[in-house]
Amino acid sequence: MKVLFVAGDPKPERWTVPIKQLLPEADIYVWDPDGPAINADYAIVWQPPAKLFERETRLKAVFNLGAGIDGLLKVPNLPADLTVVRLEDAGMSVQMAEHVLHQILEVSRQMELYRDQQRQRLWKIHRPISRKEWPIGIMGLGHIGKRVASTLASLDYTVNGWARSEHTVEGVRTFAGNGQLGEFLGATRVLVNTLPLTSETENILNYDLFSQLQPGAVLINVGRGEHLVEEDLLRALDEEKLQRASLDVFRKEPLPAGHPFWERTDITITPHISARTLRDATLEQITGKIRDHASGHPITGIVDIARGY
Amino acid sequence: MKVLFVAGDPKPERWTVPIKQLLPEADIYVWDPDGPAINADYAIVWQPPAKLFERETRLKAVFNLGAGIDGLLKVPNLPADLTVVRLEDAGMSVQMAEHVLHQILEVSRQMELYRDQQRQRLWKIHRPISRKEWPIGIMGLGHIGKRVASTLASLDYTVNGWARSEHTVEGVRTFAGNGQLGEFLGATRVLVNTLPLTSETENILNYDLFSQLQPGAVLINVGRGEHLVEEDLLRALDEEKLQRASLDVFRKEPLPAGHPFWERTDITITPHISARTLRDATLEQITGKIRDHASGHPITGIVDIARGY
Repeated sequence: MKVLFVAGDPKPERWTVPIKQLLPEADIYVWDPDGPAINADYAIVWQPPAKLFERETRLKAVFNLGAGIDGLLKVPNLPADLTVVRLEDAGMSVQMAEHVLHQILEVSRQMELYRDQQRQRLWKIHRPISRKEWPIGIMGLGHIGKRVASTLASLDYTVNGWARSEHTVEGVRTFAGNGQLGEFLGATRVLVNTLPLTSETENILNYDLFSQLQPGAVLINVGRGEHLVEEDLLRALDEEKLQRASLDVFRKEPLPAGHPFWERTDITITPHISARTLRDATLEQITGKIRDHASGHPITGIVDIARGY
Repeated sequence: MKVLFVAGDPKPERWTVPIKQLLPEADIYVWDPDGPAINADYAIVWQPPAKLFERETRLKAVFNLGAGIDGLLKVPNLPADLTVVRLEDAGMSVQMAEHVLHQILEVSRQMELYRDQQRQRLWKIHRPISRKEWPIGIMGLGHIGKRVASTLASLDYTVNGWARSEHTVEGVRTFAGNGQLGEFLGATRVLVNTLPLTSETENILNYDLFSQLQPGAVLINVGRGEHLVEEDLLRALDEEKLQRASLDVFRKEPLPAGHPFWERTDITITPHISARTLRDATLEQITGKIRDHASGHPITGIVDIARGY
């Protein structure tokens, strides 16, 4: 079995050495842009070049090194019938859940105000949070969205969830499709975006949507930068449709110097760190699936290329 | 039935009006330091004066407006056979759990560093957290400690718990008594104190204890200020036995101007806000128990005065 590793890591041996340990029966190759075809059976990829699919024509499946496969689906000559497998969780959903909670508490429990007070050596107690005033809405109920939703529900928040199709999450009221989006937004003060990026969800975080949220609304975007219409966010903040935004993802990363978001005190910027791919968990998952697939067993996480996730 | 409200609130009607609504069958009185005895059946108290127990000699039970009853037990002439009932949860444990998680993430996920970077308009990603490097130890496994422990365990942290007596918490390894304290501390990097304040636990957070924690240790004190030997904390920070402390409670509150803690950048100070008594939930609980007690039903939360909690 030939496995090809295709990611722009300057030290690919950080990946290939553990892959070989986990999958000793395979020959492991690192992508060489100028090399010959190796006729790989499987490829493990992150934002691969189009050339990959020109040269390697016997691939049985491609494994994406992340949960979001929008980068892979953009590759022009990705064969429409190729088996594309995305990363499932691998330690990411729990990181996302705690990051989102942290960002909510920054606003709801006024943590920045208390830090300011400490700098001023001021002891002053403010009104306590009433959870009823902070209903949370999670957009996207995939593995990550569900974990974020159930974590917040377990902390006694009112949590609503919205996705394209019907989902069930314990302790969470769920809404489905465009027909129920307005009702979902009207019940939401903290909007958390965990949607996959598709042609249907691009630009979904726009002025019209922000206008339907409850007063004092907060946006937390941990999905993709392309979900957000950037000018609309600035307008919604300026018009107080939103009181604050916490953004972990951007249309262009790193966020360019001179971008207007850097100027804002009502936007929290984190450099795409809300959930990190953990190498050990990732490679255990992918090598396990390669072994299962090679021996004819079913695997989970296969992408519906037409649907986009 | 006569119910006496004894707390130093300048607007006692904020409490007595809802008490009357919840317990319409009772006559509600507000403590008057210079008034006559009213022969109350029940008292609802926060840090009451000694005079209360001189004057009111027919009390069937006293209900404390908080979970920690160290303030009440200090009142000199508290009758040893009086039924003392502490507040159980009333929305506090979940607040404590989220506050503790927030404080952990501040350190483990370097949130202050990312805020600094934003101020500098710097996009820089640091090494992701490995949960294995952040084992958490919860001291005190009462209602609050258990909720903190189980919340953190549900987020895939390694969580250990220690208390005077044996306890069971799902997903948490528990240790009991002084004999197992050393083993507990050696397994702990983030030490969270939720103990009740008793003569046995006063000064338990001291240099000797800090010295037994794992390298890079962090202290989070949400118990009582008297648990902590303040000079020992400063020494442990200076000697890097601890990398950071987050303190929500202090020996003297408000923390006095000029206190050395205000000078430190390695101590986070919050003004006793990690868990707030929520009036509605508190009064529903207490009035429900008064009604149960008056009609001869058993109630929970009765304090063992000799044990101190």
